[in-house]
Amino acid sequence: MNSSTNQVYPVIWHNNSVSLIDQTRLPNEYAFVEIHRCSDMAQAIKTMIVRGAPAIGVAAAYGMYLGAREIETSDRNQFLTELEKVAQLLRTTRPTAVNLFWAISRMLKIAYETLGTVEDIKQTLLNTARSINAEDLQTCYAIGDNGLRVLPQTPEKLTILTHCNAGALATAGYGTALGVVRSAFREGRLARVFADETRPRLQGAKLTTWECVQEGIPVTLITDSMAAHCMKQGLIDLVVVGADRIAANGDAANKIGTYSLALVAKAHNIPFYVAAPLSTVDFSLSDGNEIPIEERNPEEIYQIGETIITPTGAEFYNPAFDVTPAQLITAIITENGVFAPGELAKSRIKQFA
Amino acid sequence: MNSSTNQVYPVIWHNNSVSLIDQTRLPNEYAFVEIHRCSDMAQAIKTMIVRGAPAIGVAAAYGMYLGAREIETSDRNQFLTELEKVAQLLRTTRPTAVNLFWAISRMLKIAYETLGTVEDIKQTLLNTARSINAEDLQTCYAIGDNGLRVLPQTPEKLTILTHCNAGALATAGYGTALGVVRSAFREGRLARVFADETRPRLQGAKLTTWECVQEGIPVTLITDSMAAHCMKQGLIDLVVVGADRIAANGDAANKIGTYSLALVAKAHNIPFYVAAPLSTVDFSLSDGNEIPIEERNPEEIYQIGETIITPTGAEFYNPAFDVTPAQLITAIITENGVFAPGELAKSRIKQFA
Repeated sequence: MNSSTNQVYPVIWHNNSVSLIDQTRLPNEYAFVEIHRCSDMAQAIKTMIVRGAPAIGVAAAYGMYLGAREIETSDRNQFLTELEKVAQLLRTTRPTAVNLFWAISRMLKIAYETLGTVEDIKQTLLNTARSINAEDLQTCYAIGDNGLRVLPQTPEKLTILTHCNAGALATAGYGTALGVVRSAFREGRLARVFADETRPRLQGAKLTTWECVQEGIPVTLITDSMAAHCMKQGLIDLVVVGADRIAANGDAANKIGTYSLALVAKAHNIPFYVAAPLSTVDFSLSDGNEIPIEERNPEEIYQIGETIITPTGAEFYNPAFDVTPAQLITAIITENGVFAPGELAKSRIKQFA
Repeated sequence: MNSSTNQVYPVIWHNNSVSLIDQTRLPNEYAFVEIHRCSDMAQAIKTMIVRGAPAIGVAAAYGMYLGAREIETSDRNQFLTELEKVAQLLRTTRPTAVNLFWAISRMLKIAYETLGTVEDIKQTLLNTARSINAEDLQTCYAIGDNGLRVLPQTPEKLTILTHCNAGALATAGYGTALGVVRSAFREGRLARVFADETRPRLQGAKLTTWECVQEGIPVTLITDSMAAHCMKQGLIDLVVVGADRIAANGDAANKIGTYSLALVAKAHNIPFYVAAPLSTVDFSLSDGNEIPIEERNPEEIYQIGETIITPTGAEFYNPAFDVTPAQLITAIITENGVFAPGELAKSRIKQFA
C-alpha cells in the first residue's frame, strides 16, 4: 500500500554538496536548498530549514565535512584545531537535540583516530557522514518495525495520534514516530493518523500532514488542545511521538506540548510511546531536569504568515521543548528493541555487545 | 490601578440600534458594527462578530427586540406567532451557549406576559433587553468580587492562567474569568495573567491580550500546549476560565482546550475555577454528556489570515467546545457566591429565594 515513489529524504549528499528540503516552505512549496559551506549548514539548522533531532544529526555530520573541506592546511594538528572550531560553530545552533552533539562528537573522534594525510581525514569524514546518513535510515526502518510489536491487538485498524513531526522529514527518511505509523500502514494495521498541529511552528499541520498525504496515509489534523477531547470520545488508540533528548532514567525532551499530551493520555489510559534512535539517549544526564530547553523568538507565536495575531504590549513565553517524565511513557521504541523507560540501560548492553 | 477610561462594552444600545464591537477585527482594528435588523444580529452571532456566552445572551435579547420591531401587525396573537419565528431564527445561530436560549426564552416569556397593545409589548421587550444587558454587567462585577474569596493566600501576587476570552468582550463588560482577574488586579493581588492563545480562533491571543493591554494588566501569551510546562515550572498559581453551558451536576462546556487544561491543572494540584453567571447553568441537563457540541468550519484550522497552513488532502476535526467533568473543577464562581460543582442546586435556592 505504501508507495515507494514518494519517499521523502530531507538531507541528501549530491554533487559534492548537501541538498536540504527547505522545511520552512512546506507544504506550499517542495523546494531544495543547496548547502556548500559549513556556515550555511549552521544557519540552515538554526533557522529550521532542516529540523527534527535525527535529521539535525545527519545535517551536522555533513556540516562537519563541509567545514573540514574549507580548512586550508596540510598540517594535521592545525587541521584538527580548526576542525574543533567547526564543531563549536555547529554546536551552538540548537541546544536541545542531543543527536547534534552526538554526530559532531562522532565526526571529531573519527578525525582524531584517522591516520594519514589531512586529505585522508577529509575523505574519512565524508564517508562517516554518509554512514551516519545511511545508518539513520536503517535505524528508522528498525524503529518502525519494532513499533509493530507494541500495537494494541484490537481494534484491527488503529488510530494513532502524533505530535509535531517525527517523520521522514525529521530523520534521514521514514521517520521515528511516523516510522511506526508507516510500518503499521504497510501491515494493514492503520485506520488513520491524528496529527496535532503543534503550535507555534505548526510542524504537525505543515509537515506531518504533508508527509502522510504524499503516501496516501489518511490523516486528520486537530489543534493541540483538542487531543484530550478526542481521547475522551474514544477516537485515539495510542500516541506515538519522537524525542530530541532522552535522559538515562527515560525522561524525554520533545517538542513543546508533548508533556501535556502525555498527561492527557495517562488520564485516559491510552498508551504513550516515544520512538527514537539510541543516539537520542544522553546517558550523561541522570534525569530530564538536566536537559537544556531552548527558548525561541516570540515572533514564532505572534506572527503567522503575514498576520500579526496579538496587540502591541503583550509579552510572550516561547519554550521550544518540554520534558515528559518517564512514568508517563509506556515504552521507548528504539532500533534495538522496545524498552521500559527505566530499562534504557539494557539497550546499551545490546548496542555495544 | 484599573483605569476606568478604557472599559470595554461589546454590545451597546445606541441610537435605536445595537453597536457591536467587531471582534473578528481585533486586535488590529477596534471597530463597531451597527445592527438594525434581527437577521443581521443572527449573522453577527453566527460569524462571531459577537461571541462569548453571556455577550451572546445580551446580543440575542436585543435581536429579539429588533425582530419584534420589524413585525408589522397590531394583532397580538399574530405578533406572538411572528415573534416565535424570530426566536427560532436566533436559536439556530450557535448550539452550545445556553445563555442564548435563556435570553430568548426570557424575552418570549415577557412578551406573552405583557398586557396591552403590540406597541406596549415591543417597548417592554426593549426594556427587558436593556435590563438583561445591565444585569449582566452587575453579574460580572459580582462574579469578579466573589472570585476574590477563592484566591490562594500566598503568594501575595498571583499568576492566573486563563483560556479563550471570558472577558469584557464575552459579556456585557468586565468579564467572568477576566472579571476575577480585574478584581484581583484592583485589589493588588495580581502579578500577571498567562493567556492561552486558544486555537483555532485565537481568542486568547487576539482578545484577552487586547483587553489586558487596554487596562495595563500584565499579560504573557503562550500557545495552548505550553500550559502544562508552565505549571510544572511553578509559574501558575491558579486557573480561571468561563463556561458556555454548565449541567446540573457541574460538568462545564467551554472553549475547546478547557478540558485538556483542567486535566493538566489537576496533575499539578493547581486550583481550577469556572467563573460564570447562573444563566449559564442548564438545570435541565443532568450531566455534560447531554450538552450539544458545535462543530465549526475546518477553515478555522487550516487558514490563518491569508496563510493556508496545510496541504491539500488532509482532513480536519474542529469541535468548538469540550466538556470538563465536575470532578476536575475546584469550584464554580457565580454572582450568588462560590459553589462546589456538586452543590450548584444550592445556588438556585439563593437565586430564587
